Amino acid sequence: MKIGIIGLGLIGGSLGFDLRDHGHIVYGVSRKESTCQRAIERGVVDDASVNINLLSTVDIIFLCTPIGLISKTLKQLISNLKPEVIITDVGSVKTAIVKECEPLWSNFVGGHPMAGTAEQGIEAAQKNLFKNAPYVITPTEKTPKNSIKILEALAQSLGSNVYTCSPEIHDQAVAWISHLPVMISASLIAACVEEKEQTVLKIAQQLASSGFKDTSRVGGGNPELGLMMAQYNKTALLHTLQGYRQQLDEAIEYINTEQWDALKQLLMMTQKERSPFLNE
Amino acid sequence: MKIGIIGLGLIGGSLGFDLRDHGHIVYGVSRKESTCQRAIERGVVDDASVNINLLSTVDIIFLCTPIGLISKTLKQLISNLKPEVIITDVGSVKTAIVKECEPLWSNFVGGHPMAGTAEQGIEAAQKNLFKNAPYVITPTEKTPKNSIKILEALAQSLGSNVYTCSPEIHDQAVAWISHLPVMISASLIAACVEEKEQTVLKIAQQLASSGFKDTSRVGGGNPELGLMMAQYNKTALLHTLQGYRQQLDEAIEYINTEQWDALKQLLMMTQKERSPFLNE
Repeated sequence: MKIGIIGLGLIGGSLGFDLRDHGHIVYGVSRKESTCQRAIERGVVDDASVNINLLSTVDIIFLCTPIGLISKTLKQLISNLKPEVIITDVGSVKTAIVKECEPLWSNFVGGHPMAGTAEQGIEAAQKNLFKNAPYVITPTEKTPKNSIKILEALAQSLGSNVYTCSPEIHDQAVAWISHLPVMISASLIAACVEEKEQTVLKIAQQLASSGFKDTSRVGGGNPELGLMMAQYNKTALLHTLQGYRQQLDEAIEYINTEQWDALKQLLMMTQKERSPFLNE
Repeated sequence: MKIGIIGLGLIGGSLGFDLRDHGHIVYGVSRKESTCQRAIERGVVDDASVNINLLSTVDIIFLCTPIGLISKTLKQLISNLKPEVIITDVGSVKTAIVKECEPLWSNFVGGHPMAGTAEQGIEAAQKNLFKNAPYVITPTEKTPKNSIKILEALAQSLGSNVYTCSPEIHDQAVAWISHLPVMISASLIAACVEEKEQTVLKIAQQLASSGFKDTSRVGGGNPELGLMMAQYNKTALLHTLQGYRQQLDEAIEYINTEQWDALKQLLMMTQKERSPFLNE
């Protein structure tokens, strides 16, 4: 197949590597000429350009821009394309994006390869980034069946574990396991540094070890990403935050009123219920 | 020195290993004959017994029982001891323990070596467990200065980073960095499994990766330990939970009312403020 990738960062670049390895011809588009050059040098793409016309002959296009630019990019793109071209994206939220893109291009299939590293940009692109990672495909009733199949096959060829669900189910699920953890983890750091007693704060910083480190990790991550999750997945995130807050209040109540049996039951339950979330 | 250790689990056993390596003679006491035998076989102690009289000639005693048994054990112990014997403990909360033990034995020094593994018991005991780990000593105004110095020197000989503060400051600090994370992490797991939509829960479990794994780790740990933290450090833990809840409510408010600038400021602050807690 001839494959187009718009946005040659970590995800777009890594997709290019693997898709070329599977024999596809990959054309890349970036807003920066220097990124196009590096993409060609690193072997991420067969050819690259700042001009979107490079993609006029491809069969499928992966939109790998930041979330805020996906539908804008699609609008610029579609005037010169044949209707059989499949367009997919790699955004980490799906309802808002599918709602914007589907009316613009009927052959649009939402997707979310759930892989990443702490690094970003074309230099961070690597082979096999998606191997053993989830790749969620989020069709609607209107999505052409054959296009879903083609995207599934490509995702499987990357070594990903492919899941298919509605954009709404995807967004609720990632709110629980990805977006909510960011907010509760950030709130932990923010609450600690609000401690008025400076001696306590200083000793706390000195004594902090793996427990604090792990619980605070995602709350200390990229602010842009956290903000974007909240903006684009507001409804689902608020649903999880409300459920979380209720649960937290219950734990506070158990401690405040010394309902030790209830607290123990809760902690026994969470010990047991964590395992189904560990995909190892 | 002649050193006594009561409770030959992970902490007591590991202390025995290192103190013997530094040339001390170590006597161990356990409630179980089989544990005494294993402690001798593993070389954790020079001798061990279920009979507390084994410790009648020692200079310092480490109480390494579970927190709930520390003052009880002290009561049984003191009738046959010379007043110059230093008694210390290794409990992870200090205010309640020091308050109970100091009136029973004026030569008592509270301590908290902050090391551990996921394993427990004599078989988990290992050399150098305390190396580069914090060892907090929590004297009061009444604690004999010389006894503090002796315990500090022993803790330093283990390779630990020794900190000295009041029991209250210790308890407030560990509430922030150890006990609060357990409660907010457990509440995350509990809230997720309360999700009514089974499809969402199932997909969430399949998609969960390192972010969820890290944030939920301490909430999926030993329920007995979590319960004990809450019981023995109730006041300090509630203080941190209230601060945390306020902070969480603020984040929820930002998202609900779309105060995106405020949310971004918050996430930029938490990204920056996490580093002082990472002792690497």
